[in-house]
Amino acid sequence: MQRVADLDTPSMVVDLDKLEANIQRLQASLDSLGLANRPHIKTHKIPAIGHMQIAAGAKGITCQKLGEAEIFADAGFDDILIPYNLVGAPKMERLTRLARRVKMTVAVDGAVAARAIAEACDAAGVEVTLLIEVDTGMHRAGVQSPEDAQTLARSIADSPGVRFGGLMCYPTKPAMVAFHAEVRDRLTRDGIPLEQFSGGGTGAQQVSKDAGCTEHRSGTYSYNDLSVWRAGNCELDQCAMSVLVTVISTSCPGFSTIDGGSKTFTNDALQTTGVNGYVREFPEIYLEKMSEEHGVLNLSRLTDASARPRVGDKIHVIPNHACGTTNLHDVVYGYRAHGSRPTDGTLSGDELIEVEWPVPARGKIR
Amino acid sequence: MQRVADLDTPSMVVDLDKLEANIQRLQASLDSLGLANRPHIKTHKIPAIGHMQIAAGAKGITCQKLGEAEIFADAGFDDILIPYNLVGAPKMERLTRLARRVKMTVAVDGAVAARAIAEACDAAGVEVTLLIEVDTGMHRAGVQSPEDAQTLARSIADSPGVRFGGLMCYPTKPAMVAFHAEVRDRLTRDGIPLEQFSGGGTGAQQVSKDAGCTEHRSGTYSYNDLSVWRAGNCELDQCAMSVLVTVISTSCPGFSTIDGGSKTFTNDALQTTGVNGYVREFPEIYLEKMSEEHGVLNLSRLTDASARPRVGDKIHVIPNHACGTTNLHDVVYGYRAHGSRPTDGTLSGDELIEVEWPVPARGKIR
Repeated sequence: MQRVADLDTPSMVVDLDKLEANIQRLQASLDSLGLANRPHIKTHKIPAIGHMQIAAGAKGITCQKLGEAEIFADAGFDDILIPYNLVGAPKMERLTRLARRVKMTVAVDGAVAARAIAEACDAAGVEVTLLIEVDTGMHRAGVQSPEDAQTLARSIADSPGVRFGGLMCYPTKPAMVAFHAEVRDRLTRDGIPLEQFSGGGTGAQQVSKDAGCTEHRSGTYSYNDLSVWRAGNCELDQCAMSVLVTVISTSCPGFSTIDGGSKTFTNDALQTTGVNGYVREFPEIYLEKMSEEHGVLNLSRLTDASARPRVGDKIHVIPNHACGTTNLHDVVYGYRAHGSRPTDGTLSGDELIEVEWPVPARGKIR
Repeated sequence: MQRVADLDTPSMVVDLDKLEANIQRLQASLDSLGLANRPHIKTHKIPAIGHMQIAAGAKGITCQKLGEAEIFADAGFDDILIPYNLVGAPKMERLTRLARRVKMTVAVDGAVAARAIAEACDAAGVEVTLLIEVDTGMHRAGVQSPEDAQTLARSIADSPGVRFGGLMCYPTKPAMVAFHAEVRDRLTRDGIPLEQFSGGGTGAQQVSKDAGCTEHRSGTYSYNDLSVWRAGNCELDQCAMSVLVTVISTSCPGFSTIDGGSKTFTNDALQTTGVNGYVREFPEIYLEKMSEEHGVLNLSRLTDASARPRVGDKIHVIPNHACGTTNLHDVVYGYRAHGSRPTDGTLSGDELIEVEWPVPARGKIR
């Protein structure tokens, strides 16, 4: 089997032991809370990993774009939520085509989007379940009040072609306890059942439980990344994904340069820290700056200057944002560490590649 | 012909009149300065646009990655510069394979990279021209002093398999005048000819001329973007590329949400301004925040609230960074405006799609 250390760079690699443990851990957490698991596949965009999540107990999946949903429906996933207003005639045609073969649920936040979906589904003779998105602070979509949710729910409940399912939010926040209760009261008086409440956010499982959610959507938990780690929702050692890069220049005092930048990692930055990636093999070194194809490692914390990486060294960088990184890579290498795993986070050289996954939902922006 | 207004969204679109004018303008500027033009194709990653640049007078092209160079060599480009240390055995094999069929020039900044290329070329029986990269302030690669340039030039000149070509820098800075002169003096004393000096940076043509460059590399000029505009190197109306998006939510007071975010535009942000994109049709509205698939338009500058975009409206967003945006799109639509072109920057509805270009060098990170 090919060794990770022999891969050309940059290459996105996934530690399969850690990936499997991450999937089991989140599933166990949701099982103990009695919440259904509906993982968001935008983090990996790979059906094989989605199947691992289903096998662990997930009831369905979340896709952000119809293009993702089409690929996952082709791969056998039959219960798909799109937590996002779908707008426009081409999308109505694709949604109804999907709804003919799998259970589709879509979140909406207003009458225009809800009506268009209802009319398209009615004309096509299919049914889609609609959830009402509630804004919990992202200020990008979602109804603003229980009154607005009630008005929209009534309109959905009265429309052919769609079925009113309940509520959806991201991320779940404590304020959802009261909001959900009030919407439920209002709809009970209207005789409209509120069956489903979909909460979300890696690390927000307990909040979803408290708010009365029936299911929870997490994405990043499968890989984890520096953002999840900084939020306190994983250990650094639980980051399953990293990018293998090569040191290509040491000419600038205080810095080393790698062959990956914003076109490898994204510029989804931790602005407040100036740290855009951690280097597994050199815990004192961090990715500070990125151009498109250059990443600049800051060496100022190095206590032993002779431990500085040299031109040609291959190192693993854990990025800020797994989901953005995934979207830049056509292929991902899954490896497993054999022999003794070093306890300091470095790789032993015995990491063998078990699987090479294409990323078929990469770039599915429509 | 299909109209731009009928495209599904998000879709990356290019105004062909503006693209052609941008290509002619930069070529005329370099012609008047007597500098050869070696455009960087990373901005568009499309051979057809590279051929337009060659037809306008460019002498060769610049590619950042071997994967780009392989695609452009297949498309008939025969003079390719990679301004970037190539390191590692797989890359040596690919470089020598390319050098068998096209003229390859590579920039290096140290003995390790130079020696590896020389040995690989010598073993393969091919010759690659090496330029020495000079650091002009990016602090990511490049020799730091004329002495270091001289030492490296001597070593390259003595090596079989490679030919010493000269210097390379990005971006060209005024300090290059003295640096270049001193390196030239030192190498003249050594009997080593310094034939080529490759400068770069959209808008830095005159600086390259003053520094004694023989050629100039610009990339972003073909499309232009908000970064080029803010640097004073183009008019907003000369931005040829934009992304057609749909307004999908108006539920949050003061904002409208579009169906594109950091996976459509990148997070290559103009941090200081909070403006991440301009909307052609609504000059008072700007793209403020981005999630992965949501973009949030700030409406606070709107003088006429009734002019607020509605759910379903399609609008064109000019992004911060054309090169990063290109790398997220599998296809680009080239259109031409017919009938009278509105003078306020909006589209007339008569923009007809003439060409649908795949982006074959997208995602070529190796």
